[in-house]
Amino acid sequence: MADLGSVKALLFDVFGTVVDWRGSIIREGEALGRDKGLTIDWARFADAWRGLYQPTMARVRTGELPWTKLDDLHRMSLDRVLADFGIRGLSAEEIDHLNRAWHRLDPWPEAVEGLTRLRRRLILATCSNGNVALIVNMARRAGMPWDMVLGAEVARHYKPEPEAYLISADLLGLAPEQCMMVAAHNGDLAAAAGCGLRTAFVLRPSEHGPAQTTDLAPARDWDVVAKDFVDLAEKLGC
Amino acid sequence: MADLGSVKALLFDVFGTVVDWRGSIIREGEALGRDKGLTIDWARFADAWRGLYQPTMARVRTGELPWTKLDDLHRMSLDRVLADFGIRGLSAEEIDHLNRAWHRLDPWPEAVEGLTRLRRRLILATCSNGNVALIVNMARRAGMPWDMVLGAEVARHYKPEPEAYLISADLLGLAPEQCMMVAAHNGDLAAAAGCGLRTAFVLRPSEHGPAQTTDLAPARDWDVVAKDFVDLAEKLGC
Repeated sequence: MADLGSVKALLFDVFGTVVDWRGSIIREGEALGRDKGLTIDWARFADAWRGLYQPTMARVRTGELPWTKLDDLHRMSLDRVLADFGIRGLSAEEIDHLNRAWHRLDPWPEAVEGLTRLRRRLILATCSNGNVALIVNMARRAGMPWDMVLGAEVARHYKPEPEAYLISADLLGLAPEQCMMVAAHNGDLAAAAGCGLRTAFVLRPSEHGPAQTTDLAPARDWDVVAKDFVDLAEKLGC
Repeated sequence: MADLGSVKALLFDVFGTVVDWRGSIIREGEALGRDKGLTIDWARFADAWRGLYQPTMARVRTGELPWTKLDDLHRMSLDRVLADFGIRGLSAEEIDHLNRAWHRLDPWPEAVEGLTRLRRRLILATCSNGNVALIVNMARRAGMPWDMVLGAEVARHYKPEPEAYLISADLLGLAPEQCMMVAAHNGDLAAAAGCGLRTAFVLRPSEHGPAQTTDLAPARDWDVVAKDFVDLAEKLGC
């Protein structure tokens, strides 16, 4: 393991790493379904909605779309998924409320406890593709103790573009090697490492449900590999 | 008083409003003076350093300087003030440490209690000319419970430019009128009101020391006038 004594801040991926987006979207869908009498496979719905996440961000990365925050990309995707699932008759307000389900995602069970321990010694910031309002509202609802919300909207670049990591470190007044990216995704860590950040892989083997096939193990020799955030706190001496 | 039920977030000026910059810089100067055997009027030193605050930001606002974060403006000013006061022989490390005194400012006595109450119901963000690292480090040291650090560095515009307020509100996903600027300075509130924000004036009659002559009273009929942050929490029903 590299010398980690110079690490001053942890930058967290959020969707999948801190929060269980899939379980939370299913929960929100089921509540809507009960309310509106809809019979929908909400797990398939969640996967379909999330399935449009990378393709819509790619349209921003390539310049096909001007800068568009994730709330608005989520809404474009939602309109399509609602149509694909034949869900009709929701009011604009109901669709907006459903779109903001991403502001109401639940953390993994030990996440807040782990973050609270980590924050005693380290600066904790998000480095997510979620927009600022989404992350702030999520944090207030779940009690996530972020010192700062960084990442895509502040940098105006979606991960894995280097600016998302480098501008985040710079805003903390830190060099890349003083920051450690924490993610459940090997690709995110590879991009962060390419920018000079330290890396911590946290296992989230059910992010994509019981049949997950990706990110079940570290793909490289990351600086830290942890089974959850409490284990990460332990391994970082917090 | 205007209807304040739609206010979702408070945006805080920091220097003078949340923290006692003058008393804190005097404290830091006195510690340095004891350590280095310097006999300096640290109150005059603090006032001289802060006296260069608006002139250096003006050089950025006019475009004479490219975007420069406040830490770096503070350092330019510090070099000049050290020379003016005839302070020589400090190492680069000692000068950097003194420059970061602005990261170690103390809150006014009731500020953290008031913020903690306000945060139960309202989103709390800074909207300061201080850079992100300065505000994050200050908040960690003093236990200030910000949901988000906004303002000049994130907006790349120094207050009172409209972008500093408008980009901050937009990043929270809120309309200007859903945000209330909290400041001890009538000028800051006038600029915020000009952008459509609600306004709260908090009295800080000793920000500039015992002989303060400015901002001793509200200059206009601001939405709220409070004698401190606990009184503000009371008046906002928090």
